[in-house]
Amino acid sequence: MPARVPSVESRLAVLGLLLPDPPRPVGNYRAAVIADGLLFISGQLPLADGELKHPGRVGAELTEAAGGAAARLAALNVLAQIKAALGGFERLVSLVRMEGYVSSAPGWNHQPRVLDHASNLFAGVLGDRGQHARSAFAVPQLPLNAAVELVVTASVKKS
Amino acid sequence: MPARVPSVESRLAVLGLLLPDPPRPVGNYRAAVIADGLLFISGQLPLADGELKHPGRVGAELTEAAGGAAARLAALNVLAQIKAALGGFERLVSLVRMEGYVSSAPGWNHQPRVLDHASNLFAGVLGDRGQHARSAFAVPQLPLNAAVELVVTASVKKS
Amino acid sequence: MPARVPSVESRLAVLGLLLPDPPRPVGNYRAAVIADGLLFISGQLPLADGELKHPGRVGAELTEAAGGAAARLAALNVLAQIKAALGGFERLVSLVRMEGYVSSAPGWNHQPRVLDHASNLFAGVLGDRGQHARSAFAVPQLPLNAAVELVVTASVKKS
Repeated sequence: MPARVPSVESRLAVLGLLLPDPPRPVGNYRAAVIADGLLFISGQLPLADGELKHPGRVGAELTEAAGGAAARLAALNVLAQIKAALGGFERLVSLVRMEGYVSSAPGWNHQPRVLDHASNLFAGVLGDRGQHARSAFAVPQLPLNAAVELVVTASVKKS
Repeated sequence: MPARVPSVESRLAVLGLLLPDPPRPVGNYRAAVIADGLLFISGQLPLADGELKHPGRVGAELTEAAGGAAARLAALNVLAQIKAALGGFERLVSLVRMEGYVSSAPGWNHQPRVLDHASNLFAGVLGDRGQHARSAFAVPQLPLNAAVELVVTASVKKS
Repeated sequence: MPARVPSVESRLAVLGLLLPDPPRPVGNYRAAVIADGLLFISGQLPLADGELKHPGRVGAELTEAAGGAAARLAALNVLAQIKAALGGFERLVSLVRMEGYVSSAPGWNHQPRVLDHASNLFAGVLGDRGQHARSAFAVPQLPLNAAVELVVTASVKKS
């Protein structure tokens, strides 16, 4: 008999994490769209209760630790969007791709360290299903003056 | 009997819009590629008749309204590429993803308002098939000094 | 009898190119992930033997030619990742999408010319299978102070 895989919800509880309400689109688009077994999720920012947390640029107004907190919050919003789009995590096969944009001071180029906070959270909560290809970018600013934006694509079971 | 859905062409006519000729690639690549039910369209700029319109950065050389005009023109080029790639709009299932890059003055961060001009055009012309997940970015410059670049992926019927 | 298509390896040899070892991820993610017939490759930088080559911004510290060399090296790493992920090139149907980010001096906007060095390499090595949709971006900096980052998606035979 195979070992029972802990549910996403129980892993969140163990990690002391609560999924936020999924942020609503700030324009005429959808939070997520499914096509051909792939779930395309709109870019997620470090929003909580409709408010942007940790605004600014890492290496300037923000420390690397604050950038990491912003990355974790954006990652929680990614999970909240997956749950809302799929009605839970059962249909999720795995994450497949994450582009991570870090608002960065000129010359500060440790974006991968900030993004690992998001990747680690996905691994902790989703286990093997959290694995993903990743691309890191440094940008001088993001919408709403956010510190981090995450664009995630996932693989889902065809219904 | 279901209501007849107006054609893309008739919607364009009602909106007073003409599809431009699809811009040709400016290098050794394809304007669009189809794979596994997805249509990947190369980044589209606000080009008309081979000439860049509305150059510059929103919040600096350009007003928000000019940025919106640039977004609409880039969106028309997206539609022109879809039509050229698919020989019309019958095979288009829906848009699925749009990344929108807005060339922006430092500190100007209302990119979603500019990109809504593109999203609204897709909704007006394609109806439900125009819905998409969206990610917004502020960049300090774009190729050719363009104000907006749109990268769109769509879902298509497998032939 | 159809003409025999030269192998990727023989084309590399003719061009005097050697595939590098595929760079290892610099964080908690996978170099590549396959889902639904698509291969998502993590962003590739101009790394050789674990060291970044041609650091800096095109139009400032780097000439356009140096940017082109960086683009070719990043493209070789893309090929190395494909080979590692698929165990060779037999399962590769074709490239489908490339986003190319060029670290650029303010006002320097010939990114497509730099990226053609990568697109030309793909065409030379992969033939028709190297064709792709492309999006070009100018960024003020990249992780590790890289000159070029390439994000490639490919189509693969379902096993």
